[in-house]
Amino acid sequence: MTSKFLLVLFGLILIRLGSLAADPVSSEGDDGYELWLKYKPVTDSSIKAEYLRYLSFISKSGNGEVMQSALRELQTGLKSLLGKNVNVKNAVGNKSGGIILRLDPSTDTAKLPEEGYRIQLSAGNIVISSKSESGILYGTFALLRHMQMQLSVKTLNLASSPKVRYRMLNHWDNPDGTIERGYAGSSLWKWYELPERVDPRYQDYARANASLGINGTVLNNVNASARFMSQEYIVKVAAVASVMRKYGIRTYLSVYFAAPKTLGGLPSSDPLDPKVRAWWKEKVALIYKEIPDFGGFLVKANSEGEPGPQDYGRTHADGANMLAEAFQPYDGIVIWRAFVYKADANADRFKAAYEEFVPLDGKFDPKVILQVKNGPIDFQPREPFSPLFGNMPKTPLGVEFQLTQEYLGFATHAVYEAPIFKETLESDTYVNGAGSTVAKVIDGSLHGHSRTLMAGVANTGSDRNWTGHPLAQANWYAFGRLSWDHQLTSDQIATEWAGLTLTRNQKAMEPIVKLMLKSREIYVGYNTPLGLSRPWMGVHFAPEPWQSRGSRPDWTAVYYHRADSVGLGFDRTVSGSNALAQYRPEVQQQWNNPDKTPLPYLLWFHHVAWNKELSTGRTLWQELLTRFYTCANSVVWMQQQWDLAKPSLDPQVYTDVAARLKVQHREAIWWRDAWVLYLQTFARQLIPKDFEPPKQTLEEVKKSVNIYLMK
Amino acid sequence: MTSKFLLVLFGLILIRLGSLAADPVSSEGDDGYELWLKYKPVTDSSIKAEYLRYLSFISKSGNGEVMQSALRELQTGLKSLLGKNVNVKNAVGNKSGGIILRLDPSTDTAKLPEEGYRIQLSAGNIVISSKSESGILYGTFALLRHMQMQLSVKTLNLASSPKVRYRMLNHWDNPDGTIERGYAGSSLWKWYELPERVDPRYQDYARANASLGINGTVLNNVNASARFMSQEYIVKVAAVASVMRKYGIRTYLSVYFAAPKTLGGLPSSDPLDPKVRAWWKEKVALIYKEIPDFGGFLVKANSEGEPGPQDYGRTHADGANMLAEAFQPYDGIVIWRAFVYKADANADRFKAAYEEFVPLDGKFDPKVILQVKNGPIDFQPREPFSPLFGNMPKTPLGVEFQLTQEYLGFATHAVYEAPIFKETLESDTYVNGAGSTVAKVIDGSLHGHSRTLMAGVANTGSDRNWTGHPLAQANWYAFGRLSWDHQLTSDQIATEWAGLTLTRNQKAMEPIVKLMLKSREIYVGYNTPLGLSRPWMGVHFAPEPWQSRGSRPDWTAVYYHRADSVGLGFDRTVSGSNALAQYRPEVQQQWNNPDKTPLPYLLWFHHVAWNKELSTGRTLWQELLTRFYTCANSVVWMQQQWDLAKPSLDPQVYTDVAARLKVQHREAIWWRDAWVLYLQTFARQLIPKDFEPPKQTLEEVKKSVNIYLMK
Repeated sequence: MTSKFLLVLFGLILIRLGSLAADPVSSEGDDGYELWLKYKPVTDSSIKAEYLRYLSFISKSGNGEVMQSALRELQTGLKSLLGKNVNVKNAVGNKSGGIILRLDPSTDTAKLPEEGYRIQLSAGNIVISSKSESGILYGTFALLRHMQMQLSVKTLNLASSPKVRYRMLNHWDNPDGTIERGYAGSSLWKWYELPERVDPRYQDYARANASLGINGTVLNNVNASARFMSQEYIVKVAAVASVMRKYGIRTYLSVYFAAPKTLGGLPSSDPLDPKVRAWWKEKVALIYKEIPDFGGFLVKANSEGEPGPQDYGRTHADGANMLAEAFQPYDGIVIWRAFVYKADANADRFKAAYEEFVPLDGKFDPKVILQVKNGPIDFQPREPFSPLFGNMPKTPLGVEFQLTQEYLGFATHAVYEAPIFKETLESDTYVNGAGSTVAKVIDGSLHGHSRTLMAGVANTGSDRNWTGHPLAQANWYAFGRLSWDHQLTSDQIATEWAGLTLTRNQKAMEPIVKLMLKSREIYVGYNTPLGLSRPWMGVHFAPEPWQSRGSRPDWTAVYYHRADSVGLGFDRTVSGSNALAQYRPEVQQQWNNPDKTPLPYLLWFHHVAWNKELSTGRTLWQELLTRFYTCANSVVWMQQQWDLAKPSLDPQVYTDVAARLKVQHREAIWWRDAWVLYLQTFARQLIPKDFEPPKQTLEEVKKSVNIYLMK
Repeated sequence: MTSKFLLVLFGLILIRLGSLAADPVSSEGDDGYELWLKYKPVTDSSIKAEYLRYLSFISKSGNGEVMQSALRELQTGLKSLLGKNVNVKNAVGNKSGGIILRLDPSTDTAKLPEEGYRIQLSAGNIVISSKSESGILYGTFALLRHMQMQLSVKTLNLASSPKVRYRMLNHWDNPDGTIERGYAGSSLWKWYELPERVDPRYQDYARANASLGINGTVLNNVNASARFMSQEYIVKVAAVASVMRKYGIRTYLSVYFAAPKTLGGLPSSDPLDPKVRAWWKEKVALIYKEIPDFGGFLVKANSEGEPGPQDYGRTHADGANMLAEAFQPYDGIVIWRAFVYKADANADRFKAAYEEFVPLDGKFDPKVILQVKNGPIDFQPREPFSPLFGNMPKTPLGVEFQLTQEYLGFATHAVYEAPIFKETLESDTYVNGAGSTVAKVIDGSLHGHSRTLMAGVANTGSDRNWTGHPLAQANWYAFGRLSWDHQLTSDQIATEWAGLTLTRNQKAMEPIVKLMLKSREIYVGYNTPLGLSRPWMGVHFAPEPWQSRGSRPDWTAVYYHRADSVGLGFDRTVSGSNALAQYRPEVQQQWNNPDKTPLPYLLWFHHVAWNKELSTGRTLWQELLTRFYTCANSVVWMQQQWDLAKPSLDPQVYTDVAARLKVQHREAIWWRDAWVLYLQTFARQLIPKDFEPPKQTLEEVKKSVNIYLMK
């Protein structure tokens, strides 16, 4: 799915942005609803003059729904950017001075993949061409993005195509309107109102996704309700799918593996039972009757109490292949999640998915994609890449990122996630020698797969600004852009997003982008430095590193950090769980020697003595404290960066983020104090004089945490 | 709390509205956020000329926060209505042509109660006067309402004061952002963001309430979390209270009775334990330190599994009085809910609250108000009034209405609730002879109480339009207006609301108001006709009259309707549970004879044979079917009424409601079919030929209902 034709113009973009005049602050508050599609009037008069040369007409070929959307978006965008209503003319002959949407499988686009697009000047027109209407739509959004950034079109020549085929959001939304791990209001999907009432917001959701290249959405939680397999709900889903379809987005559903029993009334949900197989076939047929472009199923099975094929002594492959069979007549797929970890007192959860799935490589139907979380545990602020990547060459592996900030401070911490996504994607698995990055596993280039997938657990909700924290919009944006092109850098994406969303003023953008780029390291620093993980157990909001009681050992916090009188960290070398053995020797080499392991990964793989001197010249205890304190303080630096941008920001957005940064600072200190006071009970060392001692005792911090665990 | 000075000008208003020209349909969509405070430009030129005579200046006395709000509202409203910025001048001498906000305890307002206001012309100015800043604010909103309706100010002379002292919303909002029985998104209160971030929406919430005269809000669910008693949360609550205070609204909290144990770490929460009493005293003192105008506590105790004084062998009075003691130094109150019903296989839940509370009359501290749901069961579409009203003369009784449509079709059925509220308020208890209405119990006039209360369980949520269903805004409006003046009629309020919110066009308003006024009877007709109740058990959404398994007998549906081969209904006469004995003889007389009981109450009190001929000349079976069918069909009539108004409605609002009415029609048929098919198994009679037989079997309907009961 990679394309040779991709032309990234970020150098140009950055130069261009530098020369822009300051935007006047809008007198009306920006409530964030418009996201990165604000289409503020073009203020650069010479650029405006350039653009106006192409507004005599719009011409289009093709008349499908997606082409109609492209046209509507283009007209709306041009009207807003340039104040001009541009009409459609279909017989333009040799006319110049217009924009042409050319659905053209033969000429310009011959070498482009299906969804790719090309934008260029031709005979005095701007021509957007593609083999598909979706490609035209993506090209249209690209042109509008170009214009929003006030870039010249004099030498316009853009071509782009997606590196990954299935680019989708996963909504962990329940039918009652709640969202598992949602921090931006309730679900967008109003199931009780559907199918008769189709909330106008669904279309704005689709627009936003299409503008990034996202082409799929799983509407319901992976902890799925069987409701969605009922005719009543299929009809509701179909109403949503009709809106998505207009923007080239296919609709998927999460399925409850035991639905044949609970909904269908069958005695079993055994995937080898012919009646069960028939039930699913019929069900899928019913779905396609209502939703002809239905995307497929996403399945969480035999994981965290969900039912699955193992309930009947069958394998994940048996379960997935049964569903794939039901999709044989259709262009739909089965996405099977690899997030599994059995209850086992002596096991290392790190190793669980690999142990269950690697033996099944080659046993899955070609319609099955295995969806693997980026790390081996569960969306921690930093994880090593999952050892599954690269180790199932016969199976298409998709990656699952989490946009919603379950472990990243909910809606009160600013954490720009592109660096997390990039860190995984750029990790080298070495499975086919150096350069065998996770990105190459995901985009299919390493093992020759064409069914490729990047999924993001959505951070959208019914809050007016979609994501709660205004800066969290950037995580949706970054995911979408990376799912299209994983070679974009975190910096490019942040610059682009901030320019489209917050301000065109370069002086204001600089500190914002700095803040964004450093935000993840700052968060890690006060939350899980040096490779710590999972200091949460109850709600995933408050520090609980002391939590030691759970129905399973791996449902405690102490299981993960293993603090004792000697030191801290989880020994995953050969002397410990030997999880490292799941990686190639080149990877093992990076991480198996505590003296050479990069500090961000140290405690993921080693139990390190409190007084061990690290590469920084500080002992473990000193290094931990340095990071906890420096990074909690760095939230003040983040506030300063934000304040630098204030003159160019919408006042409502400025105030919102400024207030959340205050919350973040208070909570960062809370995290720091919780960890420091707790670890001190093992390390039995003083807090160095450089650091202000916590104002509370450990018991007081625990008490303040317990408040958040009350019903 | 009644006022002799109330001048209702509705006759005038209705005449005036009749002469208005059609509003042009706005080109921008109305998203409902502005509620009834739209302040659309005045279009009647002669009226506009009248108003403009008073826009030379605004003068105000007093400088408190509430006065500032009144000024801000007035300036904003005038600017929007009349396009003019009106400045404040404080030394106006003998000038005329302005609007004067006069805080004046001595002259004009001498006979008005504290919160009352007077609006009149004086020396060429419009003068709004009151003893209190809150009164000025209420007067300001009244003047703006007057102007929104384009009524003349030539003979302006309005005086009004509230009949009830505590007019408040109860939010059943949980700290995690979910709302128990909420159908309009998630909670307005963003606890994780507070206190640093104060959502701008809190102020708009306060404005809307103040515009109706609501002066209190309970922020959290009566199934309360102890979190709210922690210092962390008190500080958060204080930040919300600071916004409310500016609009004359006091903030209250629901409390978890066992908080001394769970939060305070005490061994008991026994209300007679001195340590427990001390804990609450200290807690209340802490609250007042942060929130000097804190309103008080709302308590659900020993009800539906919540802890309470009975856990320690104490009475409700013991529990309430302990809390009242903690409030002695402050102007706060304790609101104790009477919604209790013990598990008892032989009891009639109808009688439970009376049995528990009447013996306690006279034992409550004067700071305690008992909050009683309007009916004896639980917010059913129609209930007889609670027999507690009038039967606890020594105790101030407040009424609790439910605005959120838990049993009224969630956000997909249009049910205008003013007729429900009025029905209760106008019910005659006969406790001091004829005319002893529930309203007179509530407003304190019957038994001489000054602490009087009307509470509404809020239907607000984070949805952009606040209430999900656009027409549900009218229930918030109606509750607020009735809490100020329970003598307003349902028709007056509907006319006023529709005029402010939807259209000024009389031709459009007529069908809308008709639709609203009939909506409740229509709903009852297909849902619980003839005095049926509680055909729900799981989610309160889908019909389940067959539901017969529950952990308690009164947690089944069959407990309430008692269908059998003989007939239908709950015998509450002397031959049955004798719940009727809880009412005065005059009331008993109305309801104890099945031949004379008004049909809407028939099955509340009698088990009636299927073939019994009713006053309509039809048998019970025939009458039931007539109502089920007629009322399900009447949703089509509602759609027609709505369509008649279409030309004058905002397209977005029109489409939204039209779609919800379609859902309502589908669901009304579902309800009808569920009941008819189920009752037929007992009545063993055919469906008369006039009625189209259900398209589904009972088993099929059950199956479709079960879908909504799945997790």
